Amino acid sequence: MTSSLHPLDQAVALQQREEDLYRGRITPAYANMVGPFGGTIAATVLNAVLGHPKRLGEPVALTVNYAGPIADAEFDVRVRPVRTNRSTQHWLIELVQNGETAILASAMTAERRETWSDQELKFPEVPPADQVPVTPTGTVAAWTSNYQLRFVEGFLTFNPQQAGDSSQSRLWVRDEPPRPLDFVSLAAISDVFFPRVFIRLQKPAPAGTVSMTTYFHASAAELAAVGERPLLACARAQVLHNGYADQTAELWSEQGRLLATSQQLVYYKA
Amino acid sequence: MTSSLHPLDQAVALQQREEDLYRGRITPAYANMVGPFGGTIAATVLNAVLGHPKRLGEPVALTVNYAGPIADAEFDVRVRPVRTNRSTQHWLIELVQNGETAILASAMTAERRETWSDQELKFPEVPPADQVPVTPTGTVAAWTSNYQLRFVEGFLTFNPQQAGDSSQSRLWVRDEPPRPLDFVSLAAISDVFFPRVFIRLQKPAPAGTVSMTTYFHASAAELAAVGERPLLACARAQVLHNGYADQTAELWSEQGRLLATSQQLVYYKA
Repeated sequence: MTSSLHPLDQAVALQQREEDLYRGRITPAYANMVGPFGGTIAATVLNAVLGHPKRLGEPVALTVNYAGPIADAEFDVRVRPVRTNRSTQHWLIELVQNGETAILASAMTAERRETWSDQELKFPEVPPADQVPVTPTGTVAAWTSNYQLRFVEGFLTFNPQQAGDSSQSRLWVRDEPPRPLDFVSLAAISDVFFPRVFIRLQKPAPAGTVSMTTYFHASAAELAAVGERPLLACARAQVLHNGYADQTAELWSEQGRLLATSQQLVYYKA
Repeated sequence: MTSSLHPLDQAVALQQREEDLYRGRITPAYANMVGPFGGTIAATVLNAVLGHPKRLGEPVALTVNYAGPIADAEFDVRVRPVRTNRSTQHWLIELVQNGETAILASAMTAERRETWSDQELKFPEVPPADQVPVTPTGTVAAWTSNYQLRFVEGFLTFNPQQAGDSSQSRLWVRDEPPRPLDFVSLAAISDVFFPRVFIRLQKPAPAGTVSMTTYFHASAAELAAVGERPLLACARAQVLHNGYADQTAELWSEQGRLLATSQQLVYYKA
């Protein structure tokens, strides 16, 4: 770990200790209101798969269950392929601190082949990134300073009188400082949204992601082609019911390619 | 297992062998084109959690990774709570056949409390179930005979000339014979949709779910209140890209309550 590394690469860095065991450390740069930013944790879990010598193919699916609190300290990541097929592989990953599982995750990697493809979802009509002012996010949480956010709609105003009946947010986002897009950064950005209950109520509330699933719809080469350009990130809740809300999200390239879709379940108290 | 059990309850039946080890058997009633219907497998996995003596609360999230083929034979289910908090619990479940993991699943259970709630997604405008004729599904696969399906749109015609540019399906569905709704049947129904690539091409193709995540937005009591009435089931792909397509789905009560949301990633060859 050297200071020339991007903060994201510092946050997801892992040292191999045994074939299926890695060690990492929570970095303060991505601190959230309580514990670390869940996006960095998802990226760390995925990084353990990406760095594993037995990996076959590229990520297509990642599920991260936030099972318990994570302290600002070292952690172990246990990662192993539970099933390897001809062109696909299924992974089990656990992030452990003090002997307790804090993260229970699964991932799937696959070798894709070119075949008939189609994108049904249409790119939203939003102004281009360069025409949207950068949104100051100073005081929300430390992790936001590692992103450049340009909200088109659905920002958190901290003014409950502005609360409406939609939790939809749309924003342009890229790493800050800029960093070429890859699976690690895309996994982190899939959790870049504030809890939808914040947007509905236009104020913070006790809330936290309990499970997130992201599907990757692009290859490493397609992500690399995005480079340091911002992504359009869109999210909304469909239902908030007795303490648990869903969130569905899409991450788009400027060219209108749907790079990833994601859903999460969020605990809230309101 | 007696013949008076509903076919679904026969399919998901498990015998406890050790504290965290159960045994089940694939039943022919829910056979799919290749292997068993994935919905029954998801329901079986969830049933292992529901029957576990250490369970806390009710299901809120379920992720099922279809890691390998499942033979028409006995299987073991290893299930254990990996983390138990004050009001939530995270579960790891593996379905094993011949010493190999065929299913890698995680689930979360929670005790909900009544709090501010809202349903943002609006109930689709469709004719009531009783006004939609039952769709004959005879030859598609054995499992469909255990459901009464009433397609409003997006059925599989087997006529590629009817292929359009939308993969959306909307249908009324209930167990056949009727069975009171619970988490087990809701988990199974969350996989009731044919692969979206079938709908797009209006013909079958090699395809199979590789990962499915369902969020439950209702309590056991709320599900019981639905009884044997049909659910409105809606699904669509957002993107089909080089062999993997996503699917997002919603399951609604007739009263317009969004009971579950689900997404899956589907391998396809076209």
